[in-house]
Amino acid sequence: MSQAVQAVSQQVTGDLYAEVQTFYARQMRKVDSLDIEGFADTFTDDGFVVHSTGERAQGREAMVAGMRASLPRYQDIAVRHWFGHLLIEPDGDDRLRVSYYTLVTQTSREGNVSFQPTFTVDDVLVRRDGRLLTLSRVIHRDTPVAPPAS
Amino acid sequence: MSQAVQAVSQQVTGDLYAEVQTFYARQMRKVDSLDIEGFADTFTDDGFVVHSTGERAQGREAMVAGMRASLPRYQDIAVRHWFGHLLIEPDGDDRLRVSYYTLVTQTSREGNVSFQPTFTVDDVLVRRDGRLLTLSRVIHRDTPVAPPAS
Amino acid sequence: MSQAVQAVSQQVTGDLYAEVQTFYARQMRKVDSLDIEGFADTFTDDGFVVHSTGERAQGREAMVAGMRASLPRYQDIAVRHWFGHLLIEPDGDDRLRVSYYTLVTQTSREGNVSFQPTFTVDDVLVRRDGRLLTLSRVIHRDTPVAPPAS
Repeated sequence: MSQAVQAVSQQVTGDLYAEVQTFYARQMRKVDSLDIEGFADTFTDDGFVVHSTGERAQGREAMVAGMRASLPRYQDIAVRHWFGHLLIEPDGDDRLRVSYYTLVTQTSREGNVSFQPTFTVDDVLVRRDGRLLTLSRVIHRDTPVAPPAS
Repeated sequence: MSQAVQAVSQQVTGDLYAEVQTFYARQMRKVDSLDIEGFADTFTDDGFVVHSTGERAQGREAMVAGMRASLPRYQDIAVRHWFGHLLIEPDGDDRLRVSYYTLVTQTSREGNVSFQPTFTVDDVLVRRDGRLLTLSRVIHRDTPVAPPAS
Repeated sequence: MSQAVQAVSQQVTGDLYAEVQTFYARQMRKVDSLDIEGFADTFTDDGFVVHSTGERAQGREAMVAGMRASLPRYQDIAVRHWFGHLLIEPDGDDRLRVSYYTLVTQTSREGNVSFQPTFTVDDVLVRRDGRLLTLSRVIHRDTPVAPPAS
């Protein structure tokens, strides 16, 4: 099999692309509506998040507690998570590596929009009983890169 | 049929996902180029829009008139509508419920970018003679949610 | 064949939609990490970019030189290119016309986000040995349009 054919065969299918985008569309609606329990339910029981600060929340209970603690930050603002450049890489039968950009808007009651710094996120999704769940999420705050030597 | 299999079979296909995204890519180019007639043509004859103010424009004539009235707002700025987290739910054979986030940028002639408040939109799309049209659009301005009781 | 059926048959497939999105997800990670050589490798040997200023960079060498020259602009900021409303139009067997919106964020080391003006981009992608490459890119800075006469 030529390299060219291999490259094509590694392409993610349209169906999987749509399924993963739909998964995040639902998961982010839960975050953005502060539905903490609903959000935690999109993770596996042993799922974990590593925040850009290095802080790690493992398991549903820790995740819910962490989000509750951060609720005051979302008082009186409407938060929306925007994704960009989703990259999906199947990693075995029921496991996907997914990375994406995120931009977080915060809209005040008066309608003023402000922005959190941008982030890049690395997820592992797994399929359990047919549906996708997040097994792990590692959040990286975007920082300036050193320009390559000329 | 198990619940898991049902969940999978309700997934939107890649082809439909691409078709709906393409529909909006065309519709938004019409809005953003102030092609009012072209935009109105992406709605059914009896289509309607409910704005976040509660104002309702029903039918092509009302829609065109409403957009003409708002044109002064777009004088000397380049407007772009950005979508996020499209969620497509088939609702019968030729009908789709679609919801999505929108972020609207306004770029001045000098290149300064400002933002309208973020919105979440609920559309009903229908297929007529093979092509998608918007039957209804309800626009919600994003407002802060009350944090859940701890 | 009726017009309606023709319209449907011109739809981009889900697989192609996912492949093109994935192509850009990889290409933009290269730009945003200042991987100039890696970025140039996503173009054909005779590929070219026409910037919104009218400046034209043709061929890998010119492209790499141009990007090196612009590196000081990216000192101490994390840049991210966000795409919107991808429109894919097959143009022969191994050739695609693709247009999209871009929003460019610049995040400072302190986490402050600023924006470049928005752009609309017209690409031609070609398939060579099975994989997509950019043959040409024409970048348009978004400018206010004259409102239609009422």
